[in-house]
Amino acid sequence: MSGILNYLTFTLTSTNEYSDIPDHFTNCFTRIDMSSQFEPRDPDFKSRVMQSFSEQSVMQTINASLVTVEPGHVEIELPYRRELTQQDGFIHAGISSTIMDSACGYAAFTLMPPEARVLTIEFKINLLAPAAGDHFRAIGKVRKSGRSLFVAEADLYAMSDETEKLVATMAGTLMAVNPQKPE
Amino acid sequence: MSGILNYLTFTLTSTNEYSDIPDHFTNCFTRIDMSSQFEPRDPDFKSRVMQSFSEQSVMQTINASLVTVEPGHVEIELPYRRELTQQDGFIHAGISSTIMDSACGYAAFTLMPPEARVLTIEFKINLLAPAAGDHFRAIGKVRKSGRSLFVAEADLYAMSDETEKLVATMAGTLMAVNPQKPE
Amino acid sequence: MSGILNYLTFTLTSTNEYSDIPDHFTNCFTRIDMSSQFEPRDPDFKSRVMQSFSEQSVMQTINASLVTVEPGHVEIELPYRRELTQQDGFIHAGISSTIMDSACGYAAFTLMPPEARVLTIEFKINLLAPAAGDHFRAIGKVRKSGRSLFVAEADLYAMSDETEKLVATMAGTLMAVNPQKPE
Amino acid sequence: MSGILNYLTFTLTSTNEYSDIPDHFTNCFTRIDMSSQFEPRDPDFKSRVMQSFSEQSVMQTINASLVTVEPGHVEIELPYRRELTQQDGFIHAGISSTIMDSACGYAAFTLMPPEARVLTIEFKINLLAPAAGDHFRAIGKVRKSGRSLFVAEADLYAMSDETEKLVATMAGTLMAVNPQKPE
Repeated sequence: MSGILNYLTFTLTSTNEYSDIPDHFTNCFTRIDMSSQFEPRDPDFKSRVMQSFSEQSVMQTINASLVTVEPGHVEIELPYRRELTQQDGFIHAGISSTIMDSACGYAAFTLMPPEARVLTIEFKINLLAPAAGDHFRAIGKVRKSGRSLFVAEADLYAMSDETEKLVATMAGTLMAVNPQKPE
Repeated sequence: MSGILNYLTFTLTSTNEYSDIPDHFTNCFTRIDMSSQFEPRDPDFKSRVMQSFSEQSVMQTINASLVTVEPGHVEIELPYRRELTQQDGFIHAGISSTIMDSACGYAAFTLMPPEARVLTIEFKINLLAPAAGDHFRAIGKVRKSGRSLFVAEADLYAMSDETEKLVATMAGTLMAVNPQKPE
Repeated sequence: MSGILNYLTFTLTSTNEYSDIPDHFTNCFTRIDMSSQFEPRDPDFKSRVMQSFSEQSVMQTINASLVTVEPGHVEIELPYRRELTQQDGFIHAGISSTIMDSACGYAAFTLMPPEARVLTIEFKINLLAPAAGDHFRAIGKVRKSGRSLFVAEADLYAMSDETEKLVATMAGTLMAVNPQKPE
Repeated sequence: MSGILNYLTFTLTSTNEYSDIPDHFTNCFTRIDMSSQFEPRDPDFKSRVMQSFSEQSVMQTINASLVTVEPGHVEIELPYRRELTQQDGFIHAGISSTIMDSACGYAAFTLMPPEARVLTIEFKINLLAPAAGDHFRAIGKVRKSGRSLFVAEADLYAMSDETEKLVATMAGTLMAVNPQKPE
């Protein structure tokens, strides 16, 4: 049975529906997205993320909006605009990076202590298909939450009326910076 | 309806096991691995991967073995050996890269036509925790399958008696090279 | 004799100006960028780059300009604007990526045949310091020129009245796409 | 005047040998590596690097040797051996990564305080050509030296009797870890 169904089964188990799944079977689950396991250190993480996002002037300039904020998981949407395109009329990879980096950064930020600031150390983006669509959604998720370093990944989907397509992926490193003693 | 949900529906329907899953639940599925959707172009992909793996001399040198070969999905295991460590006794990041790169490369290779050779264009690795454990498993999965370019990701787990820990992630680009007209 | 020294010798010989440079000095040269060795396949590469750049609407939106176009080497400048910043008032890493990616892409484009289009496959950016300054210059250079694949690197400098600081580096893969037979 | 030209001027001035170099020539210098500007915090950095390198068991396993250790600059050599190859007889990208990662890591380590340990956070490698040759040299250089974070780059050259070829490039992030308070 596939890992995908395992995940399904496990999830269902936790909802008290399929309690007889053997243990050796659930071991496969560790490749599941684990964002839901994260405990935010600051109960006010949502308002902290929203406040910081509102201070990213570039988000208003490109008309991006924050649509999901959960522990270790943030989603940002961007409508298509001709003003953001490269020479073929697709969204420029740098603009895709802009919302994916912020999705990763704020996903990490949800897990940081209240006094911390978030800084991107590095990221890498793979472009899988032209960024063509009516709007775009960057889904950022934390994969590792450390004391000061965080690793997050983002997927970018291009959406039109009927379709949804994965067009880019990102993996990046974020840092929690204490304003009292910056790196 | 989104492509992801279409896929989910298909998977669920085709197994006939969980037909009564409520809609709000399927929203969780957006992180599901989709490798099983890939159709190999060569029905003999498994023997082709096994043959090529057996020709990677470095795999015997480090004692790595191929443990799973599915369409767009390959797993490689490596036992811990002191001879492969860096200065703190952990597996060297380059050795972790060796099995992760081969896991990505062969995951892509499962989807290539019979005459193709596989070439790594680039990869990036994030190290999440020291590679300490009894043995290690690199799980490589294709995220995009193109005509000549493939994007794959790998996770590396360190395993001991009771525990399993994600210690590294990789994203890379692979190329199908036709020996008659190489890049 | 090494390829690097061959190159140096060639360069020096071909200028006939510095034939008596002592050995200890030529050692400095081993890190010299070698883009000037590239022969453009299209003598009209400059106008082709300028035309394509003018079609990148995002460049006008962020007010970036093309300042240097040489074989395998392109520079793009961006003035600081509050509208392009993240939460601390620095230029957002995605905007830095926008001009660095275009600098890499057009550096590769200078070496492509006239009919080709350029596509970014992937890039990675390391952020070395906050992008604070009056204006910014992305310097993109080709490191490998292949038949269809190119590898380029970019450095981003933040400049103020008296100072110039390296704030980010990028390495990326670009592809020459023939519109008649796209990847 | 730009920081780069300041640096150049300083270098040239400090040697008092080439005060009359024409402007068009000094333009070549803008790509010069600046590692020699780094001041090691520990005068014993060389023996510290050599000690740590000797503790990387994998280096003996693959027969790599440390050939240059300067502030912010380390070179590692590896002879070709069939035991380290992938399926086409070239050195496996993971083995190339092994010496490039160590070259980056030790380049950063030369600049760390005496009590620090060095940890790789992430790296990305671009493969420019097959790693074919008699031996290989990884040249690692620091591009940014911070309080705890370092960014370094490495180039990998494949060498044979008469030729030397750039076959791979790496950019990575390293961390100075204080054993008393690890990340």
